[in-house]
Amino acid sequence: MNVLFTFKIKDEQLKNLQSRFPEVHFEYNKELDESPIDKFEVIVTYGEDINTSVLEKATSLKWLMVASAGVEKMPLSEIAERGIVISNVRGIHKTPMAESVIGHILSLTRALPSLYDQQKRKEWNTRVKQTELRGSTAIILGPGAIGSEIGRLLQAFGVRTIGCNQSGRPAESMDETIQFDNLIDRLPDADYVISILPSTAETKGLLDERYFKAMKPTATFMNFGRGDLVKESILVDALKNGEIGHAVLDVFEKEPILVDSELWNLSNVSISPHVSSHSGKYIERALEFFIENLEKWQNGDGELVNLVDPKKGY
Amino acid sequence: MNVLFTFKIKDEQLKNLQSRFPEVHFEYNKELDESPIDKFEVIVTYGEDINTSVLEKATSLKWLMVASAGVEKMPLSEIAERGIVISNVRGIHKTPMAESVIGHILSLTRALPSLYDQQKRKEWNTRVKQTELRGSTAIILGPGAIGSEIGRLLQAFGVRTIGCNQSGRPAESMDETIQFDNLIDRLPDADYVISILPSTAETKGLLDERYFKAMKPTATFMNFGRGDLVKESILVDALKNGEIGHAVLDVFEKEPILVDSELWNLSNVSISPHVSSHSGKYIERALEFFIENLEKWQNGDGELVNLVDPKKGY
Repeated sequence: MNVLFTFKIKDEQLKNLQSRFPEVHFEYNKELDESPIDKFEVIVTYGEDINTSVLEKATSLKWLMVASAGVEKMPLSEIAERGIVISNVRGIHKTPMAESVIGHILSLTRALPSLYDQQKRKEWNTRVKQTELRGSTAIILGPGAIGSEIGRLLQAFGVRTIGCNQSGRPAESMDETIQFDNLIDRLPDADYVISILPSTAETKGLLDERYFKAMKPTATFMNFGRGDLVKESILVDALKNGEIGHAVLDVFEKEPILVDSELWNLSNVSISPHVSSHSGKYIERALEFFIENLEKWQNGDGELVNLVDPKKGY
Repeated sequence: MNVLFTFKIKDEQLKNLQSRFPEVHFEYNKELDESPIDKFEVIVTYGEDINTSVLEKATSLKWLMVASAGVEKMPLSEIAERGIVISNVRGIHKTPMAESVIGHILSLTRALPSLYDQQKRKEWNTRVKQTELRGSTAIILGPGAIGSEIGRLLQAFGVRTIGCNQSGRPAESMDETIQFDNLIDRLPDADYVISILPSTAETKGLLDERYFKAMKPTATFMNFGRGDLVKESILVDALKNGEIGHAVLDVFEKEPILVDSELWNLSNVSISPHVSSHSGKYIERALEFFIENLEKWQNGDGELVNLVDPKKGY
């Protein structure tokens, strides 16, 4: 069987694959348009290089392994027509995002920004204001794969987790799950309000002024979902007026943030330029998905993990 | 029953105590030398105000609750002679220290220092070098109460934990435990080498040059135990020569670090001025120990938690 990678993996990773699947021939070539690709049963790709002319040439292609979470820009109807199986790496962002969220929380709780600043001034000062994460309460907006991973880790730190979704249906690693409709009533309980919500008609502008006024004045608001959850002006006001204690933002209403955005001037905000999902281990993780599926594929098991329905697009 | 606090607790905390133990009378007075204290059966203290003249006046005293981990400066032989029960808050540092250690690790892994610096420059730059904690290996020198709490949290993050102690006896939350004698051979496996060792004859200067040469060039060395584990000059050399990737230091050979210490000039070190055990929740945590013991005391249960043997001093 022939497998084509259209992105480069490390020699060591290729060697591991080869020794694990000795009967499979792996090849790397990023010039799909100019090469004969009719012998490949499997193509491993980030997705953006797959177009209709590639599909026409790839006459043996049976499985597209897409090392990315979204496939919306791919020629899905042609893929469906040709009966090509497609799978992706849904959930690959879970680990780096959850580690970023917990890292930001602990950094603030244990006063690391102050320690870093002192160090730059060569200042030995033990009077830094530190507290503990243990015993606090977090509301997680969007307790899906990423939200539940955040919840699992928070619970290990002794944090009470309250998931919040449309239905209020129980979610993994949440001590309790509430509905969006009840969110405002429960905000006064939360030390951390963490959103990993996608952008949908329901979530757009969901958090208006009333929500920030309902939060604890010491609360930390964290947006790691989509920037349109809350207007920047509302957030700036809440931070300036002390309606909340701090904000950690990985996503913004406008990205990049404008140079004259007031957010840059606030001391109680941590700005992360939409990088919380980035990871030097991305390809390593993507290969873990691929290996699991290649084993199933070899065994004739059609139940690949992270199958995409090309008609639905996810 | 009368209980005397020689340090101030919050009104709210006192109210909680009072409602939980309605039959107990609580009083606060820090001037032990000048007040009649013969009516108090229990004294709750940080310890440094208890001397022989106080013991002579405290004729009803049966239990000293010391809200500190060390009691070595107290008049232990007089306490023993008078048959006074003494308990402390051993383990109170576990939570803040473990949170500090994990916070520092995640901050480095997820590049928070770079993000903080970019923010100061109002710079939106997504090319920060981030990796993941998951899948790495940590050696924990001194897997006692604090070390095991660090191990427990690391395991939740998918880290392999190797405890290292004198005997090699299995320790809690360690996937494996090795002896000091085997440490140097296992150092090449570790992404994190974390010490919470106390200062003893065996640990003083334990980590000589050879140990740092044995570590991965990408390893992070973290000293949260005692500074005399390693000479500052050895550490500086290891960091300058790239024998290790980074050091996070909460303790130092000399504290405070001298102004002209080379450590201040290295970019691959994080300096924490011996504050990793500090916490704004200290009294809250100490009261948790006290409440548990007061309940036992009221029930005539002599098996208080964290009893100190005044003859041994711990």
